[in-house]
Parts: sequence; C-alpha cells; structure tokens
Amino acid sequence: MNYQECIDACLKCMTDCEYCLEKMIGKNSHNDCPHCCRECLDICDLCAKALARGSKYSAQYCELCAEICEWCAEQCAAHDHEHCQKCAESCRKCAEECREVAMKIAA
Amino acid sequence: MNYQECIDACLKCMTDCEYCLEKMIGKNSHNDCPHCCRECLDICDLCAKALARGSKYSAQYCELCAEICEWCAEQCAAHDHEHCQKCAESCRKCAEECREVAMKIAA
Amino acid sequence: MNYQECIDACLKCMTDCEYCLEKMIGKNSHNDCPHCCRECLDICDLCAKALARGSKYSAQYCELCAEICEWCAEQCAAHDHEHCQKCAESCRKCAEECREVAMKIAA
Amino acid sequence: MNYQECIDACLKCMTDCEYCLEKMIGKNSHNDCPHCCRECLDICDLCAKALARGSKYSAQYCELCAEICEWCAEQCAAHDHEHCQKCAESCRKCAEECREVAMKIAA
Repeated sequence: MNYQECIDACLKCMTDCEYCLEKMIGKNSHNDCPHCCRECLDICDLCAKALARGSKYSAQYCELCAEICEWCAEQCAAHDHEHCQKCAESCRKCAEECREVAMKIAA
Repeated sequence: MNYQECIDACLKCMTDCEYCLEKMIGKNSHNDCPHCCRECLDICDLCAKALARGSKYSAQYCELCAEICEWCAEQCAAHDHEHCQKCAESCRKCAEECREVAMKIAA
Repeated sequence: MNYQECIDACLKCMTDCEYCLEKMIGKNSHNDCPHCCRECLDICDLCAKALARGSKYSAQYCELCAEICEWCAEQCAAHDHEHCQKCAESCRKCAEECREVAMKIAA
Repeated sequence: MNYQECIDACLKCMTDCEYCLEKMIGKNSHNDCPHCCRECLDICDLCAKALARGSKYSAQYCELCAEICEWCAEQCAAHDHEHCQKCAESCRKCAEECREVAMKIAA
C-alpha cells in the first residue's frame, strides 16, 4: 500500500489519543488536553482510511491532520503523565509523516 | 429509508454524547459519565450507518447499541447538568428504538 | 446545539451516501459514483461530530465537507437511479449548509 | 497498550478492506465482496478504538468483529484478485486475534 508509513503513524496516533483521552477524563488539565485528543483521533482515523483507499483528497486530509496533530502534540507535551508524553510523541511523528505525504502529492 | 426513526435516534444520541463528553472534560464526575458518552457515540454512529445500508448485522448492532445507551443513560441521568440530562434522554430514546428494531428483525 | 441545521444536513447526507454506495456496488457506473459516496460519508460524519462538540476546526471541516459534497453531488446527479438522485440532493443541501457555517465562523 | 496484537490486526484489516472495497467498485462480483469489506472496516475500526481505550464492551466488540471478519474472509477468498486475497488473509488474522481476546476477557 502507498504511504504505509504515514498510515501507520496515523493509526498509532489514533490509538494513543484514544488511550490518553480515556486516562485524562477526570484528571486536572491546565490546557486543551484531552480535548485535543478527541479531535486528533478523529482526523487520524479518517486520514488513514483516505490514504488506504487512495482518496483524491489525501493531501487535504494530510494537511489538516498535521495541523491538528501539531496542536495536540503541544498540549499533551505540557503534561507529565506517561500517556500524555507518548501521545505527544505519536502526534509529532504523525504530523511529520502527513506533511511529507502532502508535499509528495503536491510535487 | 427503513428504520428511519431508529437512525434518527442514533444520530441524535451520537451528537448529544459528543457534546456531553466535550462539556464534561475537566468537570468532576462521581460515576462513568463521560466515559460512557465516548463509548456511546461510537456505537450510535456505527449502528446508524449499518441501518442505513441495510446491514445483515443490523440486529446485533441494535442490541449492542441499546445495551450501551442504557448504561450511558443511567450514568448521565445522575448528573444535574443540562447537557447530561439531555444526553440521558437521547440515550433512553435511542435504546428504545434499537430494542424495537432488533425485535422486528428477529420476528 | 449550534449549527443544528448543518449537523442535520451532514447526517442526512451521510446516511444517503451510505445507502447509495450499498446500492451502486455491482452496478455499472460511468463516473466516480459510488467512490464519491464512500468519500463523502466519512467527511460528513466527521463534520457533524466536530460541529456538535464545537471544534475549533469546524470551519475547516465545513469547507472540506462542502468541496467533497459538491463533487459527490455532480457525480450522483448524472445517474438516473432514485438513490443517486436523492443522494445528489442531500449532497447539495449539505454543501450549502457547510459553506454558510464556514462563512459565519470566518465573519 | 494491552491487546496490541489484536489492535494491529484490526487496523490492518480495516485498511485492507478499505483498499479492497475501493478496487472492487465497478468490478464483477459473484458474491458479497465488497459489501462485506464496507461492513468489516467499520467494526474493525470500532473494535481497535474500544481495545485502545480499555472499553468494558471489548469482549462484545471482539466477538462481533470476529464474526464479521470470518464472513468477509470467506467472501474475499473466493476472488482471485490480489487485493481480495490479501484482504481475506487480514480478515482471518483479525478474526483469530479477536476470538483470542474475547476468550481472555471472559476467562
């Protein structure tokens, strides 16, 4: 499948956001985490499916996904919990992969 | 479309759970709300799509959806927030519609 | 809920695309229907949820949703099947509502 | 994350079904492929998310996912296309993992 690394990064980010959201409910947060995780998991899911089917909107999905992942990475990185740190890392990786795919498609 | 009322109830429940989840993040909760809303919105979404396409698994989706909605209704009903009360009501309505469709299909 | 008409239009479009996709599988198609329905139902779903939770990316989702709906409307409108005609109509309505919400948010 | 192998199998199955569905639209089919792929990708997606968040309905999702994957595997296996063969294999793997997780949870 084309763009397999990006698909993998999206799906890892999706499951890490799902876990982070679940763990953060009921915990104190001084920023947008875990709202950002709810947001991020949805676009990662859609972006992975779009890439898997070779959607003609892949570049647009990747750009939006990268933007949301970057926001989520910032929010989660500011929290010390292990799940937040892991989530932030997955978000950054996903954003990178998505930016790269968006550029390749535009080229 | 067949089962339009049930589809509508699922989709109303999905959006009310989405809203309730968003509002409950960061608020105190003494029970499973809003974990239940996260769970409920996913199965409502899938159940509505399955009914819309005439899935052969419609009865199974409806049964699982009803079970999750009943749990979510109980949890949200125990909270005084307006969004929780509305969410509980949508969950109960959705559970009823889903039980009815599941029975019709089995008949 | 804010933007209720747009949410409703998205969800109607989602279920009509789901139905149209199911009915078109195995039928001849001279254009992108039902590929467009697969694409359209995913973004309608996400757009409705984003609006329901008051996502800060609502305008971006609405713009992308409108673009995809307009493409899907064109494709389905070219087919005589009742489900395609209905799907095209729901796509057009959804595109209009999404354009309007995107403009309101930008204003 | 718990059940990581099952989550991975669900997500691989989801993307392979997405691809198979896209490729089968407009091709002749003598059986339920690619209807089964549409069905299968939705439950795989939900099952993976449920496992990722540690849903209390994980066992029920896994059982339903296994049942749908087994049906989809049978359908796709009967087609010679490479994407159908790969999809069938991913469906079988996912069904096995899901059965195993459902049993572990019940134990």
